Amino acid sequence: MNASSPFDILAFDFGGTRARCGLVARDGTLGPARILKRPESDDGPQWLERMLNEGRWLLKESAAPPKALGVSFGGPVDNAGHIFSMHVPGWESIDLRRRMQEAFGLPVHVDNDANLGGLGEQRFGAGKDTRNLAYFTVSTGVGGGAVLNGKVYRGTHGVAAEFGHIAVRPFDPGAPACDCGKRGCVESLASGRAIAREAKRVRAEAGLPELAGLGADQVFAAAGRGEAWALETRATAVAALAHGVASVLCVLDLPVVVLGGGVAQAGELLFGPLRTKVEEALPVVLRGRAQIRQAALGDYSSLLGAAAMAMDALA
Amino acid sequence: MNASSPFDILAFDFGGTRARCGLVARDGTLGPARILKRPESDDGPQWLERMLNEGRWLLKESAAPPKALGVSFGGPVDNAGHIFSMHVPGWESIDLRRRMQEAFGLPVHVDNDANLGGLGEQRFGAGKDTRNLAYFTVSTGVGGGAVLNGKVYRGTHGVAAEFGHIAVRPFDPGAPACDCGKRGCVESLASGRAIAREAKRVRAEAGLPELAGLGADQVFAAAGRGEAWALETRATAVAALAHGVASVLCVLDLPVVVLGGGVAQAGELLFGPLRTKVEEALPVVLRGRAQIRQAALGDYSSLLGAAAMAMDALA
Repeated sequence: MNASSPFDILAFDFGGTRARCGLVARDGTLGPARILKRPESDDGPQWLERMLNEGRWLLKESAAPPKALGVSFGGPVDNAGHIFSMHVPGWESIDLRRRMQEAFGLPVHVDNDANLGGLGEQRFGAGKDTRNLAYFTVSTGVGGGAVLNGKVYRGTHGVAAEFGHIAVRPFDPGAPACDCGKRGCVESLASGRAIAREAKRVRAEAGLPELAGLGADQVFAAAGRGEAWALETRATAVAALAHGVASVLCVLDLPVVVLGGGVAQAGELLFGPLRTKVEEALPVVLRGRAQIRQAALGDYSSLLGAAAMAMDALA
Repeated sequence: MNASSPFDILAFDFGGTRARCGLVARDGTLGPARILKRPESDDGPQWLERMLNEGRWLLKESAAPPKALGVSFGGPVDNAGHIFSMHVPGWESIDLRRRMQEAFGLPVHVDNDANLGGLGEQRFGAGKDTRNLAYFTVSTGVGGGAVLNGKVYRGTHGVAAEFGHIAVRPFDPGAPACDCGKRGCVESLASGRAIAREAKRVRAEAGLPELAGLGADQVFAAAGRGEAWALETRATAVAALAHGVASVLCVLDLPVVVLGGGVAQAGELLFGPLRTKVEEALPVVLRGRAQIRQAALGDYSSLLGAAAMAMDALA
């Protein structure tokens, strides 16, 4: 424990398959924390109660009484803090903020995981040196968050920073359809799922055998070894992501773009070619102005962002 | 004259071929004003002095001494108020703000015409009912401005809202190259120049005779008469513009998008199909949320925006 900076913020992060909770100090240090994989038998309300119990256990271990509660949710959150579905049955019926407030008797702040991932990285991670950044989380899907002047920019309806649904090949009939109802979105070309699908297609086209459980991590590793199928697959994803980043910079003119999520763990095998392609995808006036960085907080960007949001509300 | 709201803001708007100056009241009413076409013999410094004289004449006619000066410039302006080139020889060498301050002994505020077009429309025009909007000016080129919480959003380097250079067909080798160094930008597909070029191409392909001085206005008029070549040309431009608008909304989630500039004067012949295409180009979570409106201030959006900026600085 840190006497000068007690762990007095309780933070939760509800993802599609995992949830975390932890106590966080004002300087972003993570104290006692728990990670739980959602039991398949749990519906939304059951899972929430299970995590509330985890939170109660944390508080029992804690020396400092918590001052506020920040919650990251892996789905849309409106400007009133109401959550929407998350591929988990029964979530829609929950008034997450009220239930949290009842359970802990504390002010509760809720936002979605991509917005809070951006805030976490800005406050404690790869963007500590700036108050303005865009955050892309590239995993199964592609989410986004924009932090302007140190605050999450939520937009008029709470659905700003939908970076995954910027269309970069909307007129290409060969581009994949996206879950969002469009075609050729960044998500449909550069998400982990899209990379795996494209790798399978490219390997089949090249007459290569099917690889069981082929994922983005294997694609980047094979690209690092110079294998042609993987280089081609990576190029498609990187080009789409680069144009998505460039479009965000055309709108927001930011000094830093941070990429997190599972796909970003490929490190320089992603960021090397991505930086080159982003420069090419920018108009001349914007070239050389933004730094493209890997997220620094790993799986904890959103949890720490939730804590930062709760801290800001106390200040 | 209006006794309760004197014309005490002096505003200038320097475009590529025309400049305006006018006295503006705090409620946005335009008082005495002048419009000058730049004599071809004038270089930047000569033209500036000519307009300063016009401004001095206005002040002689004015009852109220001006309190501040706002300047719109048809080219990039950095965050320190320095201007960059504008296809007019000798502009680069001018310290516009300092020269204006010397000439009038007043505080001077400078921004680019697209940013100020957005601010003018937000304060006095098509966006009076909101504090948040995106503004597209569609004329020879395509420029952009974003107004967030009633202020121009300039970005870290003063080059935010480059909406014309969002790429919507970056991977299409048949898409036109853009002046910005890229391919398939909104500007290269939907500007007045792009529409005229595409119309010429489509007519030639259809074996139709060449039309002298064919411009976007004729294309929209012919589309209104149902002529196939014009419908095809319009569809290309509208689709590109729609995806540009959709990308801006994916990033900023705004309630209102205003389009001004010469091409927007086509009115419903543009806005009708555009509204439909923007909805199709949005992800489901953003559909039905933003209104697409025609600019209300015609050629005066930027001049009145410059006045609004000067007023805000006084407040």
